[in-house]
Amino acid sequence: MKKILVLHGPNINLTGIREPDTYGRVTLEDINREICAYANSLELDCDIFQSNHEGALIDKIHEALDGYDGIVINAGAYTHYSYAIRDAISSVKKPCVEVHMSNIHAREAFRHESVLALVCVGQICGFGKQSYLLGVAAVKELLKD
Amino acid sequence: MKKILVLHGPNINLTGIREPDTYGRVTLEDINREICAYANSLELDCDIFQSNHEGALIDKIHEALDGYDGIVINAGAYTHYSYAIRDAISSVKKPCVEVHMSNIHAREAFRHESVLALVCVGQICGFGKQSYLLGVAAVKELLKD
Amino acid sequence: MKKILVLHGPNINLTGIREPDTYGRVTLEDINREICAYANSLELDCDIFQSNHEGALIDKIHEALDGYDGIVINAGAYTHYSYAIRDAISSVKKPCVEVHMSNIHAREAFRHESVLALVCVGQICGFGKQSYLLGVAAVKELLKD
Amino acid sequence: MKKILVLHGPNINLTGIREPDTYGRVTLEDINREICAYANSLELDCDIFQSNHEGALIDKIHEALDGYDGIVINAGAYTHYSYAIRDAISSVKKPCVEVHMSNIHAREAFRHESVLALVCVGQICGFGKQSYLLGVAAVKELLKD
Amino acid sequence: MKKILVLHGPNINLTGIREPDTYGRVTLEDINREICAYANSLELDCDIFQSNHEGALIDKIHEALDGYDGIVINAGAYTHYSYAIRDAISSVKKPCVEVHMSNIHAREAFRHESVLALVCVGQICGFGKQSYLLGVAAVKELLKD
Amino acid sequence: MKKILVLHGPNINLTGIREPDTYGRVTLEDINREICAYANSLELDCDIFQSNHEGALIDKIHEALDGYDGIVINAGAYTHYSYAIRDAISSVKKPCVEVHMSNIHAREAFRHESVLALVCVGQICGFGKQSYLLGVAAVKELLKD
Amino acid sequence: MKKILVLHGPNINLTGIREPDTYGRVTLEDINREICAYANSLELDCDIFQSNHEGALIDKIHEALDGYDGIVINAGAYTHYSYAIRDAISSVKKPCVEVHMSNIHAREAFRHESVLALVCVGQICGFGKQSYLLGVAAVKELLKD
Amino acid sequence: MKKILVLHGPNINLTGIREPDTYGRVTLEDINREICAYANSLELDCDIFQSNHEGALIDKIHEALDGYDGIVINAGAYTHYSYAIRDAISSVKKPCVEVHMSNIHAREAFRHESVLALVCVGQICGFGKQSYLLGVAAVKELLKD
Amino acid sequence: MKKILVLHGPNINLTGIREPDTYGRVTLEDINREICAYANSLELDCDIFQSNHEGALIDKIHEALDGYDGIVINAGAYTHYSYAIRDAISSVKKPCVEVHMSNIHAREAFRHESVLALVCVGQICGFGKQSYLLGVAAVKELLKD
Amino acid sequence: MKKILVLHGPNINLTGIREPDTYGRVTLEDINREICAYANSLELDCDIFQSNHEGALIDKIHEALDGYDGIVINAGAYTHYSYAIRDAISSVKKPCVEVHMSNIHAREAFRHESVLALVCVGQICGFGKQSYLLGVAAVKELLKD
Amino acid sequence: MKKILVLHGPNINLTGIREPDTYGRVTLEDINREICAYANSLELDCDIFQSNHEGALIDKIHEALDGYDGIVINAGAYTHYSYAIRDAISSVKKPCVEVHMSNIHAREAFRHESVLALVCVGQICGFGKQSYLLGVAAVKELLKD
Amino acid sequence: MKKILVLHGPNINLTGIREPDTYGRVTLEDINREICAYANSLELDCDIFQSNHEGALIDKIHEALDGYDGIVINAGAYTHYSYAIRDAISSVKKPCVEVHMSNIHAREAFRHESVLALVCVGQICGFGKQSYLLGVAAVKELLKD
Repeated sequence: MKKILVLHGPNINLTGIREPDTYGRVTLEDINREICAYANSLELDCDIFQSNHEGALIDKIHEALDGYDGIVINAGAYTHYSYAIRDAISSVKKPCVEVHMSNIHAREAFRHESVLALVCVGQICGFGKQSYLLGVAAVKELLKD
Repeated sequence: MKKILVLHGPNINLTGIREPDTYGRVTLEDINREICAYANSLELDCDIFQSNHEGALIDKIHEALDGYDGIVINAGAYTHYSYAIRDAISSVKKPCVEVHMSNIHAREAFRHESVLALVCVGQICGFGKQSYLLGVAAVKELLKD
Repeated sequence: MKKILVLHGPNINLTGIREPDTYGRVTLEDINREICAYANSLELDCDIFQSNHEGALIDKIHEALDGYDGIVINAGAYTHYSYAIRDAISSVKKPCVEVHMSNIHAREAFRHESVLALVCVGQICGFGKQSYLLGVAAVKELLKD
Repeated sequence: MKKILVLHGPNINLTGIREPDTYGRVTLEDINREICAYANSLELDCDIFQSNHEGALIDKIHEALDGYDGIVINAGAYTHYSYAIRDAISSVKKPCVEVHMSNIHAREAFRHESVLALVCVGQICGFGKQSYLLGVAAVKELLKD
Repeated sequence: MKKILVLHGPNINLTGIREPDTYGRVTLEDINREICAYANSLELDCDIFQSNHEGALIDKIHEALDGYDGIVINAGAYTHYSYAIRDAISSVKKPCVEVHMSNIHAREAFRHESVLALVCVGQICGFGKQSYLLGVAAVKELLKD
Repeated sequence: MKKILVLHGPNINLTGIREPDTYGRVTLEDINREICAYANSLELDCDIFQSNHEGALIDKIHEALDGYDGIVINAGAYTHYSYAIRDAISSVKKPCVEVHMSNIHAREAFRHESVLALVCVGQICGFGKQSYLLGVAAVKELLKD
Repeated sequence: MKKILVLHGPNINLTGIREPDTYGRVTLEDINREICAYANSLELDCDIFQSNHEGALIDKIHEALDGYDGIVINAGAYTHYSYAIRDAISSVKKPCVEVHMSNIHAREAFRHESVLALVCVGQICGFGKQSYLLGVAAVKELLKD
Repeated sequence: MKKILVLHGPNINLTGIREPDTYGRVTLEDINREICAYANSLELDCDIFQSNHEGALIDKIHEALDGYDGIVINAGAYTHYSYAIRDAISSVKKPCVEVHMSNIHAREAFRHESVLALVCVGQICGFGKQSYLLGVAAVKELLKD
Repeated sequence: MKKILVLHGPNINLTGIREPDTYGRVTLEDINREICAYANSLELDCDIFQSNHEGALIDKIHEALDGYDGIVINAGAYTHYSYAIRDAISSVKKPCVEVHMSNIHAREAFRHESVLALVCVGQICGFGKQSYLLGVAAVKELLKD
Repeated sequence: MKKILVLHGPNINLTGIREPDTYGRVTLEDINREICAYANSLELDCDIFQSNHEGALIDKIHEALDGYDGIVINAGAYTHYSYAIRDAISSVKKPCVEVHMSNIHAREAFRHESVLALVCVGQICGFGKQSYLLGVAAVKELLKD
Repeated sequence: MKKILVLHGPNINLTGIREPDTYGRVTLEDINREICAYANSLELDCDIFQSNHEGALIDKIHEALDGYDGIVINAGAYTHYSYAIRDAISSVKKPCVEVHMSNIHAREAFRHESVLALVCVGQICGFGKQSYLLGVAAVKELLKD
Repeated sequence: MKKILVLHGPNINLTGIREPDTYGRVTLEDINREICAYANSLELDCDIFQSNHEGALIDKIHEALDGYDGIVINAGAYTHYSYAIRDAISSVKKPCVEVHMSNIHAREAFRHESVLALVCVGQICGFGKQSYLLGVAAVKELLKD
């Protein structure tokens, strides 16, 4: 059974508390349970990790070198300036899908650009918690090849 | 049964012929068959339309006012400059999901910006023909609300 | 009796339906009736044409070479990028007045620039359907010279 | 009877003398007479004021708080940088129509942007002295609502 | 006893009338009384001046050469383009504190830049009338040195 | 015998009428006769097509997949913004030469950039109708390889 | 008694050592003592935290959800690029005052923009250690409302 | 005898007091005496005017219509943003020479651009009070033609 | 018999050696022989000159004042920054055709702009050595007029 | 014996694994051994530290205040946006040499700018592991002065 | 007797031939005679040098180290991009006055910026051959100090 | 024995004379002696060449085609705009190391960009004359491969 890593970046631990108008009232714990259940239903093993620390996210991505077959990442605000996370994803050479709960292209201008996009297979944004599920479905498909 | 409109913009009729390294060798007809089958499996009725004409795409979007519950659109190169298509989507006020077969954020700079994004619920790109299927799944979820 | 051409660009056929908060609930048909009546009251003959197709608008503008003495144009979103329409207006060398129902200079940044302005006599925007009537009055004055 | 304020900004006192190729040879006094007559014909009372001083124009706009129902303003070159005049118009919350004798969008690049546009109902430019008359007609319509 | 000059720029005379949602309903007279009382409580003599005229503000700043020990200035919209006021402040070489009632960095982009900042000791913005009081406290501290 | 497609974009049907100072008084029909005669003299079969519709030009370019060995295109104003025509040329993978009657690099700034250039073999501009003849000569040479 | 959180970002632990010409020779410990004393004099409870780690600052801001009534933050260099800290402040929805010891608008260009400003009530900069005291006074006033 | 107008803009009244390192310690009165003497030695009549008010400078320039044969202007900081002064100079159609005591091209970036340059015959800067004398010499030469 | 000057700029002496993938293996000597033969076949006398020195190219262009009827120039990298060569071409007032062996609009961004274009009749690029021959044909046509 | 600190930023721990085409297959451990041996051969004591955490790198740089005579830093992707690391280097006032294994000026545009450069003595890039050795040689020379 | 160097840059040797509408019909030889006569009348020895070669101009400027007391330079088009000439002027540390016959600030945008300005005492432009004479007068004054 | 070419660009002949605060008082002759001695100690033959002429530097680089195994170049100010030198380096296909005595990334903005970087192996800057020695060491290492 293939194994994927699902990463949540800064402030996502406050989901359901932070800006509920934008993200809804479901907590991160609720979402994580749904992600795991859905991954398992697709015959994927799944680890989930959240951190507000750029370095901790990088350390975790490095674990994908030997430990994971694919990555689903919502890097939060780091999406827009963390070239260090970009280099980490590029280094581990595993298929990586970028997801966002809100439609980043319809928010403030600085959120329109993802510095991670160039090293990811694709991007899914704007569907709330469903963005994660679509990301898991996408990575499943990629691991078939 | 809800009904969706799937739109293909310019040059997508050449899929499978045009730049196969980027998009694969499956033809548009093949993809359309898959989209329809998948939509039906989600209990969605589904019409598909392709045109190289900006105006024809706008005319078709206007039909969504009365004829469709949601839209999945791959506007091809018009994505990057057709403010007229943007206004059309905005006018019909039906949930619209933007999809792209390639990862537009990892190609030439002019493809990084979608002028349609602001009037769409979300964006899915980079997964080849699967982008359409994920788009249909996303619109299905939106129509539940 | 002098004859003018009034042109409506993309999505204006949805007026009264599309974004009523911005444009009001009067339909294009209602507006056209008012334009004609007002033009006639100024002793102007008047044809009106709407299309979502950039090329169809260009074809129509070309008819002004022999068929019309002046033009009133609301090119909708094409205002902001159709250099082809600009060249068409420039080619027919008839006085052309640019109108917009909304105040384009008070909306999104991309709507602040009109690529048609350089080849038009003047611009009137922000007065809803009245913009057309003021445009007809302006062209009437120009045809006196 | 409603009362409007018509404002002329810097250098407009030289109209008919300054750059006659662009603005024609009619003097400001001539124009003012026409504006008044036209306003009266529309059952509007009308005061006219010209100054080369940014501060004097602001002081006058403040008088609209209690003294006027609407404003027609040609702020001349201040149009392009006077954020102070913009704030003045915004403060008095009376419908304001921006007019220009020349087509500012067809002249030097710095004249394409009006910093006043955001706080005005609409803009009319390019019709010489007639721009003022169209502006009065527009403000008349606005005062009907 | 040290003496300070408090300057109010364009449109601030309308405070309490203009955009009350942004600035509150307290009038400039009310604020001036509070500023004076507070300055006196810190053993500072205090003159206050308001003008909508850029030149009048410059003339007043020049009086600080011999007449004042420090300046608190809210230059209103002139903050963003009056290099002439900047040169005036720079010329009189008295400690100057820049204040704004609203948070200029959280409003329109053009308000983010202060051309006065380089010649002021510091900036305080976003606290309504309290911005002035904090400015007086800051200048008091500076005059201790 | 090899066969080429010569394409004329928007407003070129008015050649000889439109802006004669820039383009001369020879009509498009005259030019087409010369192009054909010259192509034949080089042992090239030659079809010519003009349209003001972006979509119609794309449809025609698609015909080059099976029907033509090379393309000479003057895309008119579409040269500067039609990424859809660019993708069409890129898709059909036939040698394409870009021509312009005027020297686009010596006109308005927006005409300096061709979004088609990247997918064309080369560019010829500034020589009036002769630009087409040089383009035919160039494509003849390319078809030798 | 209300409780506030005072945050010091990267390198501020070196205050009194680092660039004394710009910031003076008083150490962070000295400043912290003054801040606490002043806060207490205003009947505010006060916690102070310094870290060079972006993630640690975010973790601490999250504690304000339940633990603090207001925040005073000097985010150091993170002020200019940490959209993650911006999102953290936005999430906890407590009044936040941005302070800087130096006048950031009078230093290098990159320091002129604060990405935190939009989510803070106001900004105080340029007064050395006094900036913190003014910030505490400002937050005191905000907590009165 | 021909008559010229010498204009000093904002803050120049403080010359000899303001930033003496840049401009020297000679007062404006001293400079004016030298200018007059030099103009007379060239058989030119000469009036001198200083104001900190943009509008007052414009009013004075308008007097050149009938009262002066040429202008020497040091518009101070208005040089860099007063399009209103630019229009005034353009309106009176008398030869105008722009002078600056400091080398504006070697100071802050915003001082490198003069919005007056386009409507002046030439520019002289960097020679302290001598810039005025060279300006008078230049205008003398222009009045010979 | 009319006489033309063909100019090769910097590094073109290494043609056939330098970047053969881009330019082919034919040497400059070979190309020059072809150019001469072709020019003669069109009844044009022809001189050819190559230099790596900007000044030497300018000196040579000056010779066209009396010595040549037209110029074909490939200025190599100087194309993109030598305003001095631009002024030289402008000074001699002979028809000048700009050629490039590679398609400069399809290479690095800095090569897209030619500072020479404004003073040349037209531009031909992308056809290897054939660019020169087409340039000679174009100049022949121009000399007919 | 003088003592230097060699710092490796994010992802450099994967050297020899990550993008071997760009950086070669030698591991960080191998490189560290070479650096130490070379430093010792120059009579320099040498500590080496790697972290993916921006804050940890800052903490370590602060140790140079008392613990090290010079610094050699390869800040990886933080080079391009960590103004916090820049301030840290600036604070400790020890000679610092910036090194990069790849030629950052020949890679993606965002890597061309180093925000650390202004506070470093010099920069060495493009020589793989040898960049570090040249950096050690450079710092040795600086410590002689 | 002090000695100055007058330098003419590229294409100035064609003065009187090149663009006479802009520069007049007087030849460079005529101008040189006037410059010499005027310099002598001011008790200045004077050498004049013209070259189209950037390097030759630099070589000549280097001679000012020992041979000249001041420089008057019209660097022609090199004014706008020759940082090498800028460094040369900066190296020889003699007062240098920049002159231009045309008003460079009123011509094409690229001519508005002088890269030499920062290392020159001042700039004089727009007065034809008189610009040189004013430049000599200015340098005379500078050599008095 | 391998042979390298060391190139000095414009104004470097004045080293030790020009801006000694930035570059020190050692002359170019002194530096050249050190470079030679060091190269020989690494068993490299070494030629050194200085010129202020862009074209002469290009001519010399061309000699590397057959005469040299590697290049060390300090192109002085040409570094920032000579695309012609860039093409020359690219043409000769020998390893080239870019050096600068000052830290170009810590000086004026225009010196931050090297147009040569893309065609060089690496860059060394900021170490005065030692930059050359490190450059020689780097090229020695490259010639081992």
